[in-house]
Amino acid sequence: MLDKVLNAKSVAIIGASKSKTKRGYQAIKTLKSDGYEGAIYPVNPKEDIILGLKCYQDITQIQGDVDIALITTPARTIPAILRKCGEKKVSGAVIIAGGFRELGKEGKELEAEVIKAAHETGVRLIGPNTSGMINLKSNMNLVGIQNAPKGHIALLCQSGNMALTLITEATIRKHEGFTYYVGVGNESDIKFHEYLEFFRNDPETKSILMYVEGMSEGRKFLQEAHNTSRNKPIILLKSGRSATGKKSAGSHTGSLAGMSEVAKSAYERAGVVVIDNSDELFPVAETLSSQPVIKSNSIAILADGGGHATIAADLLTDHGVNIPELSEKTKEKLREILPDAASVTNPVDVAGGTDSDPNVFADCAKIIIQDPNVGGLLVVGLFGGYGIRFEESLAVGEEAAAHRFGAMIKKRKKPIIVHSLYSSYESHALDLLRHYNIPVHDSLDISCKCVASLCKYGNYLKSYHGKTNFVFDWRAKAKAEGQEIIENARKEGRNVLLEHEAKQLIKLHGAPTSTGQVAESEDEAWKIAKTIKANNGGKAGVVLKIVSPDILHKSDAQGVKLNLSSEKEVKNGFKQIIKSAKIYNADADIRGVLVAPMAKKGLEIIIGTKIDEQFGPVIMYGLGGIMVEIIKDVTFWVLPVSPTSCKKMISETNSSILLDGVRGQKGYDKKSLRKLLSMCSELIESYPEIEEMDLNPVLLYEKGLDVVDARIILKK
Amino acid sequence: MLDKVLNAKSVAIIGASKSKTKRGYQAIKTLKSDGYEGAIYPVNPKEDIILGLKCYQDITQIQGDVDIALITTPARTIPAILRKCGEKKVSGAVIIAGGFRELGKEGKELEAEVIKAAHETGVRLIGPNTSGMINLKSNMNLVGIQNAPKGHIALLCQSGNMALTLITEATIRKHEGFTYYVGVGNESDIKFHEYLEFFRNDPETKSILMYVEGMSEGRKFLQEAHNTSRNKPIILLKSGRSATGKKSAGSHTGSLAGMSEVAKSAYERAGVVVIDNSDELFPVAETLSSQPVIKSNSIAILADGGGHATIAADLLTDHGVNIPELSEKTKEKLREILPDAASVTNPVDVAGGTDSDPNVFADCAKIIIQDPNVGGLLVVGLFGGYGIRFEESLAVGEEAAAHRFGAMIKKRKKPIIVHSLYSSYESHALDLLRHYNIPVHDSLDISCKCVASLCKYGNYLKSYHGKTNFVFDWRAKAKAEGQEIIENARKEGRNVLLEHEAKQLIKLHGAPTSTGQVAESEDEAWKIAKTIKANNGGKAGVVLKIVSPDILHKSDAQGVKLNLSSEKEVKNGFKQIIKSAKIYNADADIRGVLVAPMAKKGLEIIIGTKIDEQFGPVIMYGLGGIMVEIIKDVTFWVLPVSPTSCKKMISETNSSILLDGVRGQKGYDKKSLRKLLSMCSELIESYPEIEEMDLNPVLLYEKGLDVVDARIILKK
Repeated sequence: MLDKVLNAKSVAIIGASKSKTKRGYQAIKTLKSDGYEGAIYPVNPKEDIILGLKCYQDITQIQGDVDIALITTPARTIPAILRKCGEKKVSGAVIIAGGFRELGKEGKELEAEVIKAAHETGVRLIGPNTSGMINLKSNMNLVGIQNAPKGHIALLCQSGNMALTLITEATIRKHEGFTYYVGVGNESDIKFHEYLEFFRNDPETKSILMYVEGMSEGRKFLQEAHNTSRNKPIILLKSGRSATGKKSAGSHTGSLAGMSEVAKSAYERAGVVVIDNSDELFPVAETLSSQPVIKSNSIAILADGGGHATIAADLLTDHGVNIPELSEKTKEKLREILPDAASVTNPVDVAGGTDSDPNVFADCAKIIIQDPNVGGLLVVGLFGGYGIRFEESLAVGEEAAAHRFGAMIKKRKKPIIVHSLYSSYESHALDLLRHYNIPVHDSLDISCKCVASLCKYGNYLKSYHGKTNFVFDWRAKAKAEGQEIIENARKEGRNVLLEHEAKQLIKLHGAPTSTGQVAESEDEAWKIAKTIKANNGGKAGVVLKIVSPDILHKSDAQGVKLNLSSEKEVKNGFKQIIKSAKIYNADADIRGVLVAPMAKKGLEIIIGTKIDEQFGPVIMYGLGGIMVEIIKDVTFWVLPVSPTSCKKMISETNSSILLDGVRGQKGYDKKSLRKLLSMCSELIESYPEIEEMDLNPVLLYEKGLDVVDARIILKK
Repeated sequence: MLDKVLNAKSVAIIGASKSKTKRGYQAIKTLKSDGYEGAIYPVNPKEDIILGLKCYQDITQIQGDVDIALITTPARTIPAILRKCGEKKVSGAVIIAGGFRELGKEGKELEAEVIKAAHETGVRLIGPNTSGMINLKSNMNLVGIQNAPKGHIALLCQSGNMALTLITEATIRKHEGFTYYVGVGNESDIKFHEYLEFFRNDPETKSILMYVEGMSEGRKFLQEAHNTSRNKPIILLKSGRSATGKKSAGSHTGSLAGMSEVAKSAYERAGVVVIDNSDELFPVAETLSSQPVIKSNSIAILADGGGHATIAADLLTDHGVNIPELSEKTKEKLREILPDAASVTNPVDVAGGTDSDPNVFADCAKIIIQDPNVGGLLVVGLFGGYGIRFEESLAVGEEAAAHRFGAMIKKRKKPIIVHSLYSSYESHALDLLRHYNIPVHDSLDISCKCVASLCKYGNYLKSYHGKTNFVFDWRAKAKAEGQEIIENARKEGRNVLLEHEAKQLIKLHGAPTSTGQVAESEDEAWKIAKTIKANNGGKAGVVLKIVSPDILHKSDAQGVKLNLSSEKEVKNGFKQIIKSAKIYNADADIRGVLVAPMAKKGLEIIIGTKIDEQFGPVIMYGLGGIMVEIIKDVTFWVLPVSPTSCKKMISETNSSILLDGVRGQKGYDKKSLRKLLSMCSELIESYPEIEEMDLNPVLLYEKGLDVVDARIILKK
């Protein structure tokens, strides 16, 4: 669908200009100098010829087909121009101009007009508020960045400067380059997931590099990312995590920066390699597009000095990568070729063993990479610089080693990553490594991050089970009785379910909870309490809670009494609750008092759902009680979740070791917990009316659990 | 004291050679080519002249004074050579050879011999197992690294390759360089803290950059660092955090990699700027040696594009740096010179406002840096590359701006840090910034880390209260009665104090604890229990615990009974405990059963002390109970700690918000807690015999606290 846009065979430049500082001049010049083979049509009513090309008054006057229009004119002119483009049956348009939703209300209205024009004419839009796009395969450069290196990475970027940064970095690194660059801008029409689908199907694109400030169709993106990441890695940095960052992103792309915990866990579940530091973004994409993944989450380190080896071991351990023992056979072979002072355990330190012949690096690598314990090799230190640092003639040995490294990767299907402090120097050996698709890094930190990413992506591919699905089957499992509870609240003009209603709803879907009964008088309260006590063998007491759609925070209104047992206690409790409620809010619509069994002690858990602005329904799970405020040990997942994903969700929290039982204590019923979590997922899928649900606390026992309080808020 | 060594006026090269690949040749060549002005004496019994210099048979035959000897011969030759050096009254020697403690037992013995020779002759040693040292002020290059840039950083490095990495980085960054480099090696004689003292007194050294794998005199280093960091920043990376990293460090410098939590908190308390990522090490040192510190923990960001601004805001927020609102006056002035699309809130985005004249950057900077809310300025984006990216003539405006940036720093005493994607390109404007001591970074991540370090160091200088002291006044506060408890255990051949002994000891120093009494019979147990109950108004029960030096883990031996009240319960409890203890360990020396009051419920706290291999006595404080295993919310501090440092120590844990009281609960008695912590410090200082002490649990109340269990282990 986007083929005609991103692989356009003809370009019209609307706003073409003779003035050298104007975008409408630069674009034409770049298309010509870069060797774009398609047709170029300048459009400007005031000019006849620009840069030797016939200039058209109007896009409709062009005789040949026009696939894409680059529009360089100001914001207010865009709607009219788009209608002209529609007339000419142009497939797509790149809108450079800013001045839309990022500028507030007026801009937002103008943007809506632009979107309307696009939808009515069928012209697909890149931008607005974008630096443009480049197809490096056909030399269609609609940005004006010179000499962007060609390669196998598709770049999707929501900041022109970040695109320039990444392209500049690629140029400096002299290894991998790009198939496409698209400046997504305000994402008014073509969305992230549509670009993703296009790049997934592009045979020359090996990895997709994304800088995102906010996306409008998060859920569709997740689904598309999930479809893509099995075949091609997606590397993504999401900025706007902090309050100030969010504000800053908002002011410049008009995008909505999303909640970061949700975003990160959602992206990772869809197989996306999420990057936190912008320095790592390009090197990781380069590595994932050029190296075999690591399937065993393990690496060997080969060093020509202890310092680098020690730092690398620290960093890789932090990243969760194993640095396994080498086999006895491997160590023996290494001992044969290395001096006595060398360390032949992992990390291997040659301790001068390469000083007179750096080709010994390749001898070591050959031995190490055959070790079945080892998933890949990280070479750290001076390789590639022996000819610079020590003696020019040593460069020959380095070059020989580089050729052998290249052959090794092919043969063993294990990656080799090279850190060299001479990576920015002229070194033929390092250029040879790049030729063999071996990334060279001057940063130890980044080398280790690249290794970690090869492991992470490898782990994902291994763990992938084909079941992750971000699509809802809305209402599929709704029950008539449940629908009725919701409709009843609606009828009364409420968007809050009363506690017993919420409990009825979740019970209907299988959640273990004591709904209790609403009493309207002291006597009725005691009657209900008696029945409850009888059912519990007379042991446990009851809980009384105020029932009023106008009192959400029951404790604040002194509307809760715990562990009441005798007739006197229950009746007094009832009276006091009603009295307090009236003091708290004289106008409150008081329906009565809920009488429910007192829950036995257990581990406090919180479960909540809400609608995330970018990703739709999400679930939060974590330890409850007072400790939660301190340890904030919660995890966020995008719904729906299967019982299997619930297992993973639970294991992500630190408290999962508590569920397993610590200090000889028995564990808790994780099966019931998983069932409850997936029930929540089902519930949200069944009733799209639900805006927010809180089960707090849920008490978890050795066997079973009890949802003690439930709150459900409907969409307004 | 080290002056004659590090500022040597004459050098002997022992192991001088005519062979070009030998260190003994390269050293002489480098000294000559670098222009060392002191005397150079080659020593080799087999040669007459090397590189035009007279060669001596023996160091004693040299007529002039010799300040320092560079010894390039193998490990086993060193002791004899040192004795010759002693005869010649040489002040210091650099020992390049490895093959000492890092190779195990034999090497360790050889190293001991070397140290003995040094101590007996008074020759101070750098190394062994070092790449050497450089005094860049006098061109005394005893390493052979060419063209190391001169500047104001003293480099102390425990890995030759890391030194080479940092020196190479300085060369590439073209801004700051070094006064000295010392390869510390095995630190056999001259220790880290001695070098530190020397650099503190060196007028040309502005910052001290350290890469440490392990140090032998951690406590002396802390004290010296504390003396230094008020005047000069110390920037330090400590590797060997992970198990593999530790192993790797051990195998290469023979140093002991220390426990990282202790190390980090201790270094920071001494004012050291601790760095985690090796990429940040040099840039941070460069920044701290050339820029004014930030006193208000705040920064303004000036960007020419949203992406960089957003990422920078995220990173700085992560680092805890404030990005304050600009004053209305500032915003107004910015509005006057920037286009409508610009964002004049912090981060400021010029939004094209610098496109036609990059000198507008300096206009903006001038306005922003005067804002009193702002502690410094971070410029991110393309500055320095306008002439490269857009139009050559724009370089002039960039140069003008660079001059103005330089003047601004001087005038305002606020730092300017520049991120530029063109930092590795030829840009005169960027070279001008470097000339004005403004560091230029191609990495956004590192720029932000540099800003954060200026804040962190500024915060330290502000908070410094002159009281931090790492020196013990051993035994000063010991009490005769306490000494007796310890001696009594010693007499019995025990290195464990029994619970009631440990409690007596801490009570003696003011800790609130119920020591209880040891009962040797059922009747005695009940008698004690009765008294306890009477004192508590008959309400609380008692606790029984087995008393045996052979049973450390009382619960494992079923040797604890809680909350016993009646005569029957207490007597039965006594019997059962004795019985279980005999089953658990038939040979155990059973002294009886401790009868103590049952403590009332409170917040569980753990306090522990131990002897860290590098830093000596340290204290651990944190939340106790079952949660501690999950949240691991503990902090480690080097002793001694004052009540003031205890305040900081408590505030470092997440649980401190719990102590303050959350969810409307009352808080806990932090004053008593601080008192207890500083009492622990006093105790360890008073009785150097103590190896380990555990107070677990301590129950903390709204008012007061109770040390419920105490364990003290003496040194063997």
